Amino acid sequence: MPRASDQARPRRDPGSTGEPGEVEVRVRYAETDQMGRAYHAHYVVWCEVGRTDLMRGLGTSYGELEERGVYLPVSNLEVSFRRAAEYEDRVRITTEVEAVRSRSVTFDYELHRLPDEELLARARTELVCVNADGAPRRLPDGVRELLRGRAVESP
Amino acid sequence: MPRASDQARPRRDPGSTGEPGEVEVRVRYAETDQMGRAYHAHYVVWCEVGRTDLMRGLGTSYGELEERGVYLPVSNLEVSFRRAAEYEDRVRITTEVEAVRSRSVTFDYELHRLPDEELLARARTELVCVNADGAPRRLPDGVRELLRGRAVESP
Amino acid sequence: MPRASDQARPRRDPGSTGEPGEVEVRVRYAETDQMGRAYHAHYVVWCEVGRTDLMRGLGTSYGELEERGVYLPVSNLEVSFRRAAEYEDRVRITTEVEAVRSRSVTFDYELHRLPDEELLARARTELVCVNADGAPRRLPDGVRELLRGRAVESP
Amino acid sequence: MPRASDQARPRRDPGSTGEPGEVEVRVRYAETDQMGRAYHAHYVVWCEVGRTDLMRGLGTSYGELEERGVYLPVSNLEVSFRRAAEYEDRVRITTEVEAVRSRSVTFDYELHRLPDEELLARARTELVCVNADGAPRRLPDGVRELLRGRAVESP
Repeated sequence: MPRASDQARPRRDPGSTGEPGEVEVRVRYAETDQMGRAYHAHYVVWCEVGRTDLMRGLGTSYGELEERGVYLPVSNLEVSFRRAAEYEDRVRITTEVEAVRSRSVTFDYELHRLPDEELLARARTELVCVNADGAPRRLPDGVRELLRGRAVESP
Repeated sequence: MPRASDQARPRRDPGSTGEPGEVEVRVRYAETDQMGRAYHAHYVVWCEVGRTDLMRGLGTSYGELEERGVYLPVSNLEVSFRRAAEYEDRVRITTEVEAVRSRSVTFDYELHRLPDEELLARARTELVCVNADGAPRRLPDGVRELLRGRAVESP
Repeated sequence: MPRASDQARPRRDPGSTGEPGEVEVRVRYAETDQMGRAYHAHYVVWCEVGRTDLMRGLGTSYGELEERGVYLPVSNLEVSFRRAAEYEDRVRITTEVEAVRSRSVTFDYELHRLPDEELLARARTELVCVNADGAPRRLPDGVRELLRGRAVESP
Repeated sequence: MPRASDQARPRRDPGSTGEPGEVEVRVRYAETDQMGRAYHAHYVVWCEVGRTDLMRGLGTSYGELEERGVYLPVSNLEVSFRRAAEYEDRVRITTEVEAVRSRSVTFDYELHRLPDEELLARARTELVCVNADGAPRRLPDGVRELLRGRAVESP
């Protein structure tokens, strides 16, 4: 379904700290579980918030990629949980480009609780580039260069 | 993004009781909150499970409608909560077609806990029929007739 | 499960605009559905973000209420959808206290897309005050007064 | 918040196939994203459905463990995605106990689409045993024995 509107979208998230790759969320009640902590699958969503904010910070947007027929589904996911995030906690997601390949990109994440900077979790996601039919394709050159400029490791 | 596969899909939900309009879910841990009950927004999702199971039971499918360019977004939503659903509770969703109009349909829901039949909530959703551009359109005749055959009130 | 930590929590949400009762979210990819818009149940979560931010803005916190054994489950919920929110859209939630009674409180919400100020939805939730056993109880006096000071209608 | 009721709960999930460790879900519209597939974080929830159904099938229940003050938060999570699950797809989750240690347990998962048995994803979660304060503790003997009886590897 095409967009109903074409309004400009400010580039960064309401929780952006100003630094590309740093964004902050606050744990919603909806995200808690009966153990009294944020349910673990929500960390996976926060990683998505982190990498899309990083991409906006680099001057592109995942939404614009999709409008060009370029999709980046997650092919692999790892999360290591250290401390529980709880209701109303502020959580800072720091996202780094770990590696960029012709048809995939890997992001690393660290999640810290604020203001005490306690490490909550580390995560890594690999995303593969596909077209609208789900067939593998190369990352567009411009996007690959933007991400490579941020990559820790750029083979 | 088109479907990657075209396998046949059995018509009813794993939790279908056999009766069109009756389907059962079990409360997932992911759906609990720190109050120790199912977070209220999940009842809205269960209503979606109820109406899509009803449509499959009537011999159509919401997924097939979308493939024909017919969309039914929710335009109005009401939920009245009576008792809390809790982790591992079985919940039966009973869905009725309340009214069918040329461009919209209203469903009513009752959610009961099993096996004690305690009423957990009543709900109502109005859905409007739109095309792929979001513009209002008439419900396809076949779908309207199927739904009217189930309607409590059919003006 | 008690909190693992007691760190101070800044009072407002990362998306707070500074005005009590106004907070902003950005639509996450996780919140979209295959219709290409935010799935309707997420508006219900955004309303929760709105009222908890309002309470923090008034100098209290829903989390602190629960630590005192005071719970506010939602007993009634209505949402009227006007326009679809889409991926990456900024959404401002404006929350007002509609009415405060001895054992319940009603909040009204308006959701606007930014920056074009398009009205996306109006909503209303009624919350009832219960203790840890789920039995009805009076709102604590301090909280009732805080909310009444904001109420449009204060019988 | 204690349970408001004590009704008996049937041991297995509505989607249980009868075999301990096999349970079926159907992809909900709420679980799709605008790529037209199930959003990846929902696979993590389906794994939770798988392991809690396995535990019920073995004659215990995670809910009962919590009532005894025994909690099993997820400490590590890996998911490898092969094929996309789509709206209305039936997904069978097969859960195995990979290893049981004194204070933790590791589950392996395979998710297949039905009826064509296409492999959608493999996953692994490690859960650690903690008490109500979040402090590490030993798995209760009875639970450890039940899980060990199912374990692929039992050091």
